[in-house]
Amino acid sequence: MAEIRFRSDVAVTLVQHVGDDAGVCRAARVSTLGAAAADTAEAAGLVRYLVKHRHGTPFEHGLMTFLVEAPIFVFREWHRHRVGWNYSETSGRYRELEPVFWVPGLERKLKPAPGYKAARPEFVEGDDADHEAIQTSCRLAYRGAWQSYQVMLACGVALEVARAVLPVGIYSSMYATANPRSLMHFLSLRTHEPEAANVSYPQAEIEDCARQMEAAFARLYPLTHAAFCEFGRRAP
Amino acid sequence: MAEIRFRSDVAVTLVQHVGDDAGVCRAARVSTLGAAAADTAEAAGLVRYLVKHRHGTPFEHGLMTFLVEAPIFVFREWHRHRVGWNYSETSGRYRELEPVFWVPGLERKLKPAPGYKAARPEFVEGDDADHEAIQTSCRLAYRGAWQSYQVMLACGVALEVARAVLPVGIYSSMYATANPRSLMHFLSLRTHEPEAANVSYPQAEIEDCARQMEAAFARLYPLTHAAFCEFGRRAP
Amino acid sequence: MAEIRFRSDVAVTLVQHVGDDAGVCRAARVSTLGAAAADTAEAAGLVRYLVKHRHGTPFEHGLMTFLVEAPIFVFREWHRHRVGWNYSETSGRYRELEPVFWVPGLERKLKPAPGYKAARPEFVEGDDADHEAIQTSCRLAYRGAWQSYQVMLACGVALEVARAVLPVGIYSSMYATANPRSLMHFLSLRTHEPEAANVSYPQAEIEDCARQMEAAFARLYPLTHAAFCEFGRRAP
Amino acid sequence: MAEIRFRSDVAVTLVQHVGDDAGVCRAARVSTLGAAAADTAEAAGLVRYLVKHRHGTPFEHGLMTFLVEAPIFVFREWHRHRVGWNYSETSGRYRELEPVFWVPGLERKLKPAPGYKAARPEFVEGDDADHEAIQTSCRLAYRGAWQSYQVMLACGVALEVARAVLPVGIYSSMYATANPRSLMHFLSLRTHEPEAANVSYPQAEIEDCARQMEAAFARLYPLTHAAFCEFGRRAP
Repeated sequence: MAEIRFRSDVAVTLVQHVGDDAGVCRAARVSTLGAAAADTAEAAGLVRYLVKHRHGTPFEHGLMTFLVEAPIFVFREWHRHRVGWNYSETSGRYRELEPVFWVPGLERKLKPAPGYKAARPEFVEGDDADHEAIQTSCRLAYRGAWQSYQVMLACGVALEVARAVLPVGIYSSMYATANPRSLMHFLSLRTHEPEAANVSYPQAEIEDCARQMEAAFARLYPLTHAAFCEFGRRAP
Repeated sequence: MAEIRFRSDVAVTLVQHVGDDAGVCRAARVSTLGAAAADTAEAAGLVRYLVKHRHGTPFEHGLMTFLVEAPIFVFREWHRHRVGWNYSETSGRYRELEPVFWVPGLERKLKPAPGYKAARPEFVEGDDADHEAIQTSCRLAYRGAWQSYQVMLACGVALEVARAVLPVGIYSSMYATANPRSLMHFLSLRTHEPEAANVSYPQAEIEDCARQMEAAFARLYPLTHAAFCEFGRRAP
Repeated sequence: MAEIRFRSDVAVTLVQHVGDDAGVCRAARVSTLGAAAADTAEAAGLVRYLVKHRHGTPFEHGLMTFLVEAPIFVFREWHRHRVGWNYSETSGRYRELEPVFWVPGLERKLKPAPGYKAARPEFVEGDDADHEAIQTSCRLAYRGAWQSYQVMLACGVALEVARAVLPVGIYSSMYATANPRSLMHFLSLRTHEPEAANVSYPQAEIEDCARQMEAAFARLYPLTHAAFCEFGRRAP
Repeated sequence: MAEIRFRSDVAVTLVQHVGDDAGVCRAARVSTLGAAAADTAEAAGLVRYLVKHRHGTPFEHGLMTFLVEAPIFVFREWHRHRVGWNYSETSGRYRELEPVFWVPGLERKLKPAPGYKAARPEFVEGDDADHEAIQTSCRLAYRGAWQSYQVMLACGVALEVARAVLPVGIYSSMYATANPRSLMHFLSLRTHEPEAANVSYPQAEIEDCARQMEAAFARLYPLTHAAFCEFGRRAP
């Protein structure tokens, strides 16, 4: 029986991509004026124009595929993004999952802040006793679930039945593919930036994934990313 | 602390709907010939024609909203249907979940059939000892997870953190809205019918949901449902 | 041979619908707190909250189907809305189109305003000579195209070939179905409101369609529509 | 004033792409067994398995962008494909269109075949007189429309108004982006193959585009394309 591991991080790796700021400009030029942007300054102006005036389709002709390792509760939120996202996730019907479970790291804010409101969920650090209690509670529950899973599998029970006891804190993996526009929409909802036009309050773990994707996005599309930030972090 | 309950069924309730076979015919008539179907025989012929020749869009102008109660592992599969489906699910970030957990019923086939293949996952009944072992394993894991969840909430831990220990066998609720076309696509993948043009092998619990929706669909769209069955149970 | 007709208006008729503000609240309550809104004041507060904080999914569980009569150039723009919209349009491959063509009405602003910019396309009235020239030019082109279409059909040429000469100003019909969320997205892009958070500059003819749909929407969902207007006319 | 040109072909050029059969296998392996396909034979087997059993999501992690030149009546059909397709088309509001118009080539079948049925639209060649009549009718209509368009532009009429007289036979351009799955869906509906599981009857001009894309697809994804053909030319 594999040994249980605990983990607090999420991992997002860029697997493949195609497209860049120049490609955005070429797509936009099909729609409007003939000549492609001749230089970076002109391209930057065009990209700003497109983002500012919400011409979104030129940002759809690109692709980034990420390999994501995160707990199921992150994937549950992620899969609610239906448009411009494609997913291939590890199936608990077809393979035995691995015993890797999420526990909050020491820096994870654990408790609702004073004056907590559902519309603006903000959290504060816990003290050592809180962390101690959580670590104990999580590990106990995870170990119990994993043991039940293994007992059932040892009895010959189908994977699809036995998995019912596995917590949403277990890690899973997926390929997730987006285009720049659908990625920007994700970032607008799954990152917290006080100066955004619409301030979002995502759960920390999906925000962590979003930040890793945003770093890759900013590297691949520096002009688009700059315009995204300039105009309120909204998808065009 | 609420008492833990165990449950083996799934519940799908039709909440609202609009559209019927006559509406399908009217939508089709906008596309082609002017006069609407004069009687049921003519409507039946038109609906058969549309399904047989895969004219799908006339089946998109209707709506069925279902209230679904099922374990999270069912919702995980369901939410992979992105097109023509809308969801509002109970949020474990915003409210404390209830201690209702899925255990397989006595009639649930538990073990891979001899000669089991992933492409055609078929199962056989377990014996009494199997059921005994599963019930014990499931309940043990669920009780442990629920206790850890409660302990953390009692410490003031945020809902979004504490829920990590809850198993995918816990029940959740959602509103799920589809149109006749997207519902037929769901039915084609989530019901097992040996005589279908493409035989699917869904997990029993999501198939149970699908069957309940199919009953409502057959009642609301008898001509469309008959054509769906006649032509291989494929969405047009 | 049918007589050519000229027309300047567009017509949008509500064909069927289901859902209302109370239904939005019920869908939201599945996600969060249990009890449905007890009265209108509470419902109004909940709907405002959802729109303000961009909780969009509760607005997807409803349907409005419109019968639209408009020139093809309007449908060309409309069909670029891919998400949450379903269309069944008259097919020029399957039926002979009718000789009804769009000409601008007297109130239609015809000429780019001084200082015209593509990002803010604004127009001014033409004078009588302009209108005279346009009416003559349009009618001449339409009559010529229609005559060619008829000649080819009389020769036995297939509809799908003969239609190539028909201008995008010819009227067509479609069923168009949306939910409140996708309709609000359409309205945000296809109506011009100086005080909107993002000011759009739609072509007048599709805006006319949008305004007719907005009137129906405001009647069916008064609370949602009020919140939509209050918070910048953006889809949640 | 630019000289009118007539054209009978459509042009589809692959602009960019990412992904291949090996990538399909990698995406599938995330879902199921760990090891990637070691060699081509194993990859071919896996790809066949995925297509045969309709596991479609591994085919979504790729991208092909095409530059398309075709008449508007082709784009009108194309844009009805909403899922997994992204478009940036030349805008007649923002730029003056060019006077290039479609006329049927000599090989184009022009007339409904004897016993023509809408469900199986088949055509036969026209004779020389037919071609003569069509060429004359088309060119006459196109010239008249173009002249009216030019007259109105010369009067200072807005592009968006003047374009109303332009026929759907005028050429336009677009970037169209798809993934392998959405492309296969397009091919299943927009190519005519008598041995397909569902025989489609597309208009010749969009089929011509589809064939050009299929050639690129077969070159980039030889195993996927072979499986697509083997299993009835249906998207998995």
